[in-house]
Amino acid sequence: MNNKIKIGVLGYGTVGSGFIEIIEKNKDKNYIEVYKILVNNKEKHINREHFDIVTDDVDEVFKGDIDILVEVMGNLNPTFEYIKRALNNGIHVVTANKDLMAEYGYELTEIAIRNNVSLKFEASVAGGIPIIKSIIESLGGNRINSINAILNGTTNFILSKMYEENLSYDVALKQAQELGFAEANPDSDVLGYDAARKLAILSTLAYDKQIYWKDAYLEGITEIDEKDIEYAKQLECKIKLIGQSKYENDKVSAFVRPVLLGKDNILARIDNEFNIVVVNGDSVGEVSFVGKGAGSLATGSAVYSDVIDIIDNRISNVESFTKEKMNIKQIVREKCGALLRFKNYNRKDILKVIEDCLIDYKVLSDDEDELVILVNANSEYEINNSLCLIKDKGYCEKYNKLLKIV
Amino acid sequence: MNNKIKIGVLGYGTVGSGFIEIIEKNKDKNYIEVYKILVNNKEKHINREHFDIVTDDVDEVFKGDIDILVEVMGNLNPTFEYIKRALNNGIHVVTANKDLMAEYGYELTEIAIRNNVSLKFEASVAGGIPIIKSIIESLGGNRINSINAILNGTTNFILSKMYEENLSYDVALKQAQELGFAEANPDSDVLGYDAARKLAILSTLAYDKQIYWKDAYLEGITEIDEKDIEYAKQLECKIKLIGQSKYENDKVSAFVRPVLLGKDNILARIDNEFNIVVVNGDSVGEVSFVGKGAGSLATGSAVYSDVIDIIDNRISNVESFTKEKMNIKQIVREKCGALLRFKNYNRKDILKVIEDCLIDYKVLSDDEDELVILVNANSEYEINNSLCLIKDKGYCEKYNKLLKIV
Repeated sequence: MNNKIKIGVLGYGTVGSGFIEIIEKNKDKNYIEVYKILVNNKEKHINREHFDIVTDDVDEVFKGDIDILVEVMGNLNPTFEYIKRALNNGIHVVTANKDLMAEYGYELTEIAIRNNVSLKFEASVAGGIPIIKSIIESLGGNRINSINAILNGTTNFILSKMYEENLSYDVALKQAQELGFAEANPDSDVLGYDAARKLAILSTLAYDKQIYWKDAYLEGITEIDEKDIEYAKQLECKIKLIGQSKYENDKVSAFVRPVLLGKDNILARIDNEFNIVVVNGDSVGEVSFVGKGAGSLATGSAVYSDVIDIIDNRISNVESFTKEKMNIKQIVREKCGALLRFKNYNRKDILKVIEDCLIDYKVLSDDEDELVILVNANSEYEINNSLCLIKDKGYCEKYNKLLKIV
Repeated sequence: MNNKIKIGVLGYGTVGSGFIEIIEKNKDKNYIEVYKILVNNKEKHINREHFDIVTDDVDEVFKGDIDILVEVMGNLNPTFEYIKRALNNGIHVVTANKDLMAEYGYELTEIAIRNNVSLKFEASVAGGIPIIKSIIESLGGNRINSINAILNGTTNFILSKMYEENLSYDVALKQAQELGFAEANPDSDVLGYDAARKLAILSTLAYDKQIYWKDAYLEGITEIDEKDIEYAKQLECKIKLIGQSKYENDKVSAFVRPVLLGKDNILARIDNEFNIVVVNGDSVGEVSFVGKGAGSLATGSAVYSDVIDIIDNRISNVESFTKEKMNIKQIVREKCGALLRFKNYNRKDILKVIEDCLIDYKVLSDDEDELVILVNANSEYEINNSLCLIKDKGYCEKYNKLLKIV
């Protein structure tokens, strides 16, 4: 690529601003010309730096014979169309958009390959942590066996606050919103969609087959209450929203769900807005990556590194998105535990079922309000089977299950 | 580069074997022809796989018009000459040799640039952890402020054993040797040379100026005894051999030394043969990388990824080795603490000096044998100054100092 690089930027929000700031900080090292910045509403940016290149007309961006399109505006539409247009016109694309990659990774990768241009998306997963490059390039010689991760800073912040300050879910969520860690509509974070999309992107690259995020088992943190936290403390555990995928015999099991983790587990030690990805490769063993999963400059740093890779002509293979679909299992098949909480219960009958079906159990509480049991089982199937029996026979009115993994 | 890649391998020990194994595992993805493997003593390999390509004559390796030379034999000589020969002949080089990069990084990088070939060394630091690529490429838009790391698995294993099993240094070292974590002559590990070399390589790349490993303050773990461990436990700390470098006002402070760390510090949580590197960048914030710092397949995995980078024509900039020398400071300039142990002491006079010079202190023990004090100071200068006074005035016969950082 020539020395003077011309880029168009879609979006001038949090990540866009961070990215532009990093370009400026590095202008002695790399000369990049930002040709246009696309925004929704031009008037809102009238007092900002670079207003002279701000536009609300996407055609203006494409007019300039740009080398790279940087997409940091988010959402699926009209983003998807803009990116396709760029790729089809031989323009390299860098995106921070996990929704888009999780939804249309297949289509976009195909178009990129057909047009012989790069499509890069390091910033789409875990902010500034270089996890995508590490999986594709650095661990390229490994068969990846598993990924265990905390991929959503919002929910990790909420769960940390609940744990450390004994806050209710609602109060912790409100604090997160006030501090800018959660959006006004937090659904995509708290229901686990965001983490599932990121897990699907990483897993597709790791196992070299297409993994669609909706095929993973999905459970958010909205049902976690102060009592769960109390029991977690009692068990010397933490509760984390974990994204896990495991490869075995050409199948993958995948989930995003709140999980009880022993405090010695490295994942249990990553609090607040931090993310962690633990990759297990057959040669390298367990490698962990920890850092801030979001933020203007952290995410901007990942976008910037993708741009420099393109400028320096470092191309890496993301064909995994175009491979056949992976067979997905939604359940934990190895030994696991669970915290079970029953309302309006019949103690004796419930314990009888559990005794018959599971490895062992311990009653943590059996007051008037609820019966709380920690169980151990050979797999989640066994636990679910017991719960079905208990429910079918009417031994309780309602129950909650919180998985515990080692 | 063409599709059929021909490589020569220097060395068929631990890392060489792991590397060859990984090439074989991946032969469907990348066809690499291993042309020759250089060994010292051919007879020793007579019953091994690939004996047909094993040679003890380096000229045999160079005869084959190889594309890449992979150096996994270690030591400075004759390795340095072989690598120069390759680079001067337009052959790319991948090396796992930290001694070589720390000592001759300048010369080798210059020759590589002059001949327009790649010199790659991901495996030289922290085994399979992709820390070099992350610093050069992924964090390329950042000004790196500091590196804090555990870079030597042998000493981390020894210190972990001493901590967990209350072993003496000698017994823990012997266990490490029996398990293959320490060499017969462990000096380079236990005296901190190995960690200092790795720290110098990372720091050179991070701060973009030459940093020579001998310019860092260096202290090994050989003086750490069971009492130190006991006091560490009492203070809810661990003792780790930490490599630290910090950039400030165009100067770098750097040390490798055993340090007391609060148990909440992420570095304190990395035990046994694991390594960790915590990089602080101005945009990305703190990013941590954890994994096995050594081992046949883990290190082989890093060597392999360098080879694939060269094959896929991903070139990254390692010119930092050829830049001017960095100004190095050898002392901790911010607030810190220290565990001081005095033998044959004069309690009153020592406390008087400490009271006058330092922020505060706490006497942990003052039995017949020794006086043990935890002090806090505005910088290490203050602590050293007090110790000088104490020694000069003859208030003790001997003392030990163990730094404590936050």
